[in-house]
Amino acid sequence: MSYFTKRYHPPGTLPGTLRPAIAEAPLVFTLVDYDAADITEILDARPEDCRPFMDRDSVTWIHIQGHAAPEVLGELGEMFRLHPLALEDVHNTGQRPKAELYDNQLFMILSRPRGAGAQDVGGQVSLFLGQGYVVSFNDGPDDPFEPIRARLHANQGRIRRRGADYLLYSLVDLVIDEGFPVLETLGLRIEELEEEVLETPTRETLGRIQALKRELLLLRRMVWPHREVVNMMVREDCTLLEEGTRVYLRDCYDHSIQIMDLLESYRDMTASMLDIYLSSASFRLNDVMRVLTIIATLFIPLTFIVGVYGMNFDRNAGPWSMPELGWPYGYLLVWVLMIAIAGGMFVYFRRKGWL
Amino acid sequence: MSYFTKRYHPPGTLPGTLRPAIAEAPLVFTLVDYDAADITEILDARPEDCRPFMDRDSVTWIHIQGHAAPEVLGELGEMFRLHPLALEDVHNTGQRPKAELYDNQLFMILSRPRGAGAQDVGGQVSLFLGQGYVVSFNDGPDDPFEPIRARLHANQGRIRRRGADYLLYSLVDLVIDEGFPVLETLGLRIEELEEEVLETPTRETLGRIQALKRELLLLRRMVWPHREVVNMMVREDCTLLEEGTRVYLRDCYDHSIQIMDLLESYRDMTASMLDIYLSSASFRLNDVMRVLTIIATLFIPLTFIVGVYGMNFDRNAGPWSMPELGWPYGYLLVWVLMIAIAGGMFVYFRRKGWL
Amino acid sequence: MSYFTKRYHPPGTLPGTLRPAIAEAPLVFTLVDYDAADITEILDARPEDCRPFMDRDSVTWIHIQGHAAPEVLGELGEMFRLHPLALEDVHNTGQRPKAELYDNQLFMILSRPRGAGAQDVGGQVSLFLGQGYVVSFNDGPDDPFEPIRARLHANQGRIRRRGADYLLYSLVDLVIDEGFPVLETLGLRIEELEEEVLETPTRETLGRIQALKRELLLLRRMVWPHREVVNMMVREDCTLLEEGTRVYLRDCYDHSIQIMDLLESYRDMTASMLDIYLSSASFRLNDVMRVLTIIATLFIPLTFIVGVYGMNFDRNAGPWSMPELGWPYGYLLVWVLMIAIAGGMFVYFRRKGWL
Amino acid sequence: MSYFTKRYHPPGTLPGTLRPAIAEAPLVFTLVDYDAADITEILDARPEDCRPFMDRDSVTWIHIQGHAAPEVLGELGEMFRLHPLALEDVHNTGQRPKAELYDNQLFMILSRPRGAGAQDVGGQVSLFLGQGYVVSFNDGPDDPFEPIRARLHANQGRIRRRGADYLLYSLVDLVIDEGFPVLETLGLRIEELEEEVLETPTRETLGRIQALKRELLLLRRMVWPHREVVNMMVREDCTLLEEGTRVYLRDCYDHSIQIMDLLESYRDMTASMLDIYLSSASFRLNDVMRVLTIIATLFIPLTFIVGVYGMNFDRNAGPWSMPELGWPYGYLLVWVLMIAIAGGMFVYFRRKGWL
Amino acid sequence: MSYFTKRYHPPGTLPGTLRPAIAEAPLVFTLVDYDAADITEILDARPEDCRPFMDRDSVTWIHIQGHAAPEVLGELGEMFRLHPLALEDVHNTGQRPKAELYDNQLFMILSRPRGAGAQDVGGQVSLFLGQGYVVSFNDGPDDPFEPIRARLHANQGRIRRRGADYLLYSLVDLVIDEGFPVLETLGLRIEELEEEVLETPTRETLGRIQALKRELLLLRRMVWPHREVVNMMVREDCTLLEEGTRVYLRDCYDHSIQIMDLLESYRDMTASMLDIYLSSASFRLNDVMRVLTIIATLFIPLTFIVGVYGMNFDRNAGPWSMPELGWPYGYLLVWVLMIAIAGGMFVYFRRKGWL
Repeated sequence: MSYFTKRYHPPGTLPGTLRPAIAEAPLVFTLVDYDAADITEILDARPEDCRPFMDRDSVTWIHIQGHAAPEVLGELGEMFRLHPLALEDVHNTGQRPKAELYDNQLFMILSRPRGAGAQDVGGQVSLFLGQGYVVSFNDGPDDPFEPIRARLHANQGRIRRRGADYLLYSLVDLVIDEGFPVLETLGLRIEELEEEVLETPTRETLGRIQALKRELLLLRRMVWPHREVVNMMVREDCTLLEEGTRVYLRDCYDHSIQIMDLLESYRDMTASMLDIYLSSASFRLNDVMRVLTIIATLFIPLTFIVGVYGMNFDRNAGPWSMPELGWPYGYLLVWVLMIAIAGGMFVYFRRKGWL
Repeated sequence: MSYFTKRYHPPGTLPGTLRPAIAEAPLVFTLVDYDAADITEILDARPEDCRPFMDRDSVTWIHIQGHAAPEVLGELGEMFRLHPLALEDVHNTGQRPKAELYDNQLFMILSRPRGAGAQDVGGQVSLFLGQGYVVSFNDGPDDPFEPIRARLHANQGRIRRRGADYLLYSLVDLVIDEGFPVLETLGLRIEELEEEVLETPTRETLGRIQALKRELLLLRRMVWPHREVVNMMVREDCTLLEEGTRVYLRDCYDHSIQIMDLLESYRDMTASMLDIYLSSASFRLNDVMRVLTIIATLFIPLTFIVGVYGMNFDRNAGPWSMPELGWPYGYLLVWVLMIAIAGGMFVYFRRKGWL
Repeated sequence: MSYFTKRYHPPGTLPGTLRPAIAEAPLVFTLVDYDAADITEILDARPEDCRPFMDRDSVTWIHIQGHAAPEVLGELGEMFRLHPLALEDVHNTGQRPKAELYDNQLFMILSRPRGAGAQDVGGQVSLFLGQGYVVSFNDGPDDPFEPIRARLHANQGRIRRRGADYLLYSLVDLVIDEGFPVLETLGLRIEELEEEVLETPTRETLGRIQALKRELLLLRRMVWPHREVVNMMVREDCTLLEEGTRVYLRDCYDHSIQIMDLLESYRDMTASMLDIYLSSASFRLNDVMRVLTIIATLFIPLTFIVGVYGMNFDRNAGPWSMPELGWPYGYLLVWVLMIAIAGGMFVYFRRKGWL
Repeated sequence: MSYFTKRYHPPGTLPGTLRPAIAEAPLVFTLVDYDAADITEILDARPEDCRPFMDRDSVTWIHIQGHAAPEVLGELGEMFRLHPLALEDVHNTGQRPKAELYDNQLFMILSRPRGAGAQDVGGQVSLFLGQGYVVSFNDGPDDPFEPIRARLHANQGRIRRRGADYLLYSLVDLVIDEGFPVLETLGLRIEELEEEVLETPTRETLGRIQALKRELLLLRRMVWPHREVVNMMVREDCTLLEEGTRVYLRDCYDHSIQIMDLLESYRDMTASMLDIYLSSASFRLNDVMRVLTIIATLFIPLTFIVGVYGMNFDRNAGPWSMPELGWPYGYLLVWVLMIAIAGGMFVYFRRKGWL
Repeated sequence: MSYFTKRYHPPGTLPGTLRPAIAEAPLVFTLVDYDAADITEILDARPEDCRPFMDRDSVTWIHIQGHAAPEVLGELGEMFRLHPLALEDVHNTGQRPKAELYDNQLFMILSRPRGAGAQDVGGQVSLFLGQGYVVSFNDGPDDPFEPIRARLHANQGRIRRRGADYLLYSLVDLVIDEGFPVLETLGLRIEELEEEVLETPTRETLGRIQALKRELLLLRRMVWPHREVVNMMVREDCTLLEEGTRVYLRDCYDHSIQIMDLLESYRDMTASMLDIYLSSASFRLNDVMRVLTIIATLFIPLTFIVGVYGMNFDRNAGPWSMPELGWPYGYLLVWVLMIAIAGGMFVYFRRKGWL
């Protein structure tokens, strides 16, 4: 995961420019049109397929999965009067989540929260809400909105009986709730890492802590603005959102706050992990060093003593020239002396709590 | 205690869904109905027992202890017109405390603060206040509201003479005040740990510090939102709460601020504990290392000297070939030399403050 | 000084309950009644002594020094219509400073800032301001308001010519200004500790740093809310406070801000002290270790060399069997070699800046 | 890059003073005048060249590249009625970005974000917007606004059809978007540095971390105020900015928030890098020290043993005087003993996890 | 520089009391009276000299340099109706900068920012603005307002043509701008210290870092409130300040924000300096220790080997009793063995990157 994931134009480019992307993912274009009674779904639709549904009372939902080519965006933009700056944001993925109110359209960008591993990249979700229609884009590898389509077909709950704003809420709610499983996994990983840090810190632990911090940081950058986005939807006096839908959006807002709350407490916990790692690692090392140093220290005076009696002074030079060497019990006495010294030091170190 | 304790639906689930819980705790359903004159209590009530009390002027309090099954919630929800999103929050415990105002109902979630040890889990308290009734839920192992029932029976203080809002206040006040004994215990633990860190840091201390930080963090996540919840009740212009009850709620608000204040100062103190632990532990080790290294250093030159006179140069090779070995007082001189060197170093180290 | 100093009822206790205290301090009850012309003081008064002064135009000041028994509080509460929740706060000392406006009464709690040492405990000051009277409580060992009484008797300044609100200001001002000497002492202690940390860090320094941090933290918890309390008095639109008194309260507010400012900068300075202590202590140790290790390293090759010539190879075994031992100047050469090696290493270490 | 880059007058200097600069860069003065139909460009213009364009309906854009001499500033200031304090800010480069509204003029200062390396200095961009004209200054070495001139000549997009406020937006947008490439480069550098810190920390790493922190800090000081500046333009009720341009400015505001967001997360990541560096470096060292100490410890008892049998006790002194020396297998036994001790210690250390 | 520099009365002192100072600095009292046409200056004036100028239309500026005695303050206070609480603040220097609006007077306290070294103490500047007059006090050793007097005499710029409020602005602007040279010096010191920390950290560096932090902290405490003070002047609806002067004050406000900005980034940089110092110092030490330990480790096995062949086993005891000693090339073989071992270890350490 890299820090800079935004696509951007070179400074000075004409605002609203859509540069052809280098490698477009295969595009899936789905159209669903429904009211309480009927539901129509067109898979692999083309922009012009939308036209017949545009003036009906039913709710039309167009979802583009994959990175749309500039021409498709252009056609859709013209058909639904999408603002060129908004289309630029859809095109240049990696945007910060935001909500913008144009004349008679609500435009939102959300980030799908992603877990560890480069594979499960979430990507950017862009949503347009207008009178009777929702246009949604997602550039990720998989379609997140399958469950909503299933609910529409099954006619479960209120969704078929309510307007486009409730559909928008359902999409937003789904994207935000995707944070919970990610956080659950992260919570488990933190607990495991905490135990590893305390019990068996190795050099790899350091890299793992740093990777976790980085992930939390990037996740936070992605989901933090969701709060403002949903809050703006709850408060903004916008005729596109019915009063009855706002209660649901408030629930959605609570969820986004819970996610931030959890993320912040995760960050708090990982903040001190590095210090604990250091403490724990240095404690382990110090334990080793202390014991080893004490062993060395015990033997140093003994080595000195045996060195003394290894000196080659000429015992015939005089009575004070190493007479001990000639004592019948000299050798034994040296052993007694050495054992006494070692024992004394051992007892002393013990008492000092060094062993 | 684990970091992620929230129950949640898979993203995309229909809002308001109540999944059957895997292992329901035994459910206790209590109904108390009272006014200034009379009081009726039904233990082990069933939802339909509530009906006769619903249209009376008296205050009806229904308390469900344990994790209610979806059917019971459904029946109650229908009888008292509880909002499906609120019921979902009651069901999916581990919610963040919040207060929500529906049409003619106030819905609140509180967390019972919990101390150390996995046993004394508090759990979530959910409260509904309507015209003349309070419905309360608690999923914990014990019923926290026993003292309130006792006060109702004994007709102590104002509680029997006032409406359902005063009952709600009494319940909220009790849950918030449960924070004080928990904080008192934590305060003592911090003081003990501080002493341990300064006086006798062992490797277990590290785990204890981390555990304390985690507990404070989780406790803070639980009680921090209480402040907003009570504040919202104090300020919100809601006809369900009488003016006279607001004075009491303000007192309750002060308590929640005091609890946060204490928690924050606890967190401040524990923040530096890890550093102190490190300092203290390294100071202890360094003391040991310094003394041992000095002992080793004292003996190293002596060992060298005895090594010199252990060399086997042929004294007959010439007059400069280890003549010392033949001196009558050579051996004594070496001892004198060694004692002088050791003494000199000892004095030098002393003066430098190394010993 | 312990972290948790609040007295509290068990959760669920009836609001407004006053439990008999376990050990009441001896109570001193003083009544002062004054106007511009006259002043009356009754020492060791009883609650019923207040009655004659209640309807007069003069200002009546009742001060209770020591921890009042529930009965006395009850009697006073009835006489002056003090709110039961306020009385509970007076009784349960260790409250967070706050100001509360009841019907026609202003109730305030302040903390007397306390310095180091368990002796000079300040305690809680509780103040009631009503029309024409002030009731004050202090549970500490000494009466802080003696200077005010002296000023009243001496008729110094404006105090006798103004109303009860100016008396309240004088009491508040005195309590807040008590912070300055405490901070002055703390400032000196920090400077001393900083020097100790840099110059002569010992193991006790660690405990002293931690004690200082704890004291600053507790002091901050005590005086931080003073700011809001005084600010509330300055801004609140309350008829009990005359406009002319607000100028003085604004001055008082400035003082409380200065105290917080000082406290915050103290906390900033002590925050890094632990790191400096660590740095300084490790620098000292490292100095020792480096010198000692260098001494050891200098001797190690020398000890090896003398070891070589202490080997007992049979010189008669052949011409390559330790011929050096037979050289006339062999011994001298070894000394020359050893001095050369030691000198070379010494020069090398010097040049590397290791010595 | 140095911390203090502001040019300032000595305190007490007359406000609006323009001191002659010590070394003026060569000045390039460009005038562009355009409407939807025509475009005129004068390179190396002089202040008096502006006069003919001043009362026309077309948009006049004057750009001064390089550090303008006081006289030129004075002439322009008189012609366009630029406020002397604004001119002082243009002259004294290194100002904090700001927007100021004078009578009928909007004055803005922006900083061009600069990357690493002293060469790519951005410098200060100062902009005046009046009725029908924009005056821009840049003191850097290269002209950042070349792409805008190209767009004007090519008549791309809306720019020729809209007023001076849209030109101003285009200039501001370009300066702010220059942050993206800088941040992209910094992001890569952080990733490289993170890997270096974890894998191969050297002493130079420390300097590199510090340099990175410094750069991020200076960059933040430069771009943080951009947010307020653009926000002020979006919100301020100023007749110089048309409603249609504000949508574009809001987009520009989003970009400035994204840049700050990225910068903050960069700062978060670098904050812990120093700790990781320390951990990583000490881990590497500790690894070395542990292995070396263990080697030393293994040999110490062995060296003692060979010392013992190097003692010169007279074997003839008695039966207890080193009889081992005369045993036929004594030497072999010593070897066996030594190998046993070394092996035992090795196994012990292994089991303890020290090796 | 000490932490607590405020002068204060003992708590409970009558508000407005002016205690005679212990050691008054020599007082210089200057009066300047001017309008567009004339200017009068009286050096060493006395309070009564002011009276003739009081009712004229001209602007009267009284500046008292040094610590004024209570009598002088009293006389001036009476003449200009200065508020006693304001005079107390003038007298008790070391106040926090603030602005206070009395009936028809604006009272301000500013701090002159001071650099390193005890000598260049700035001191407190107190300013009163009334209708047609400014009274200024400065207790420092030198008069900061000399340049303003010079400008008045030289009739430079607008100052003589505008009212007392513009004079006040000029004084405030000068005091605030004094921050720039101080910050420039500090910026250079930080850069030097950063280099020292990275390149040649000594024990004194620690004290220098701490001193720098302390200075920045004290400077911040002094200049931070300037922002509010000037902001209050810009926003406050006060008839004493003309609209035309507010543009200048806004410029002044920008300067105070720039100063805070710089200070904050300085503090950010110094915050991590201690960690870098620690890293750098420990890296240097570790380098030394590693090399030395490796030298020691290289020799330890060699010393063991020479010890082996220094044993005195009786070669006549049997064929397995140190036969090596009798080999003709035994001695050479030992050397070969030792060189091989040392070489092997050297290569191994190299390869491991330990050398």
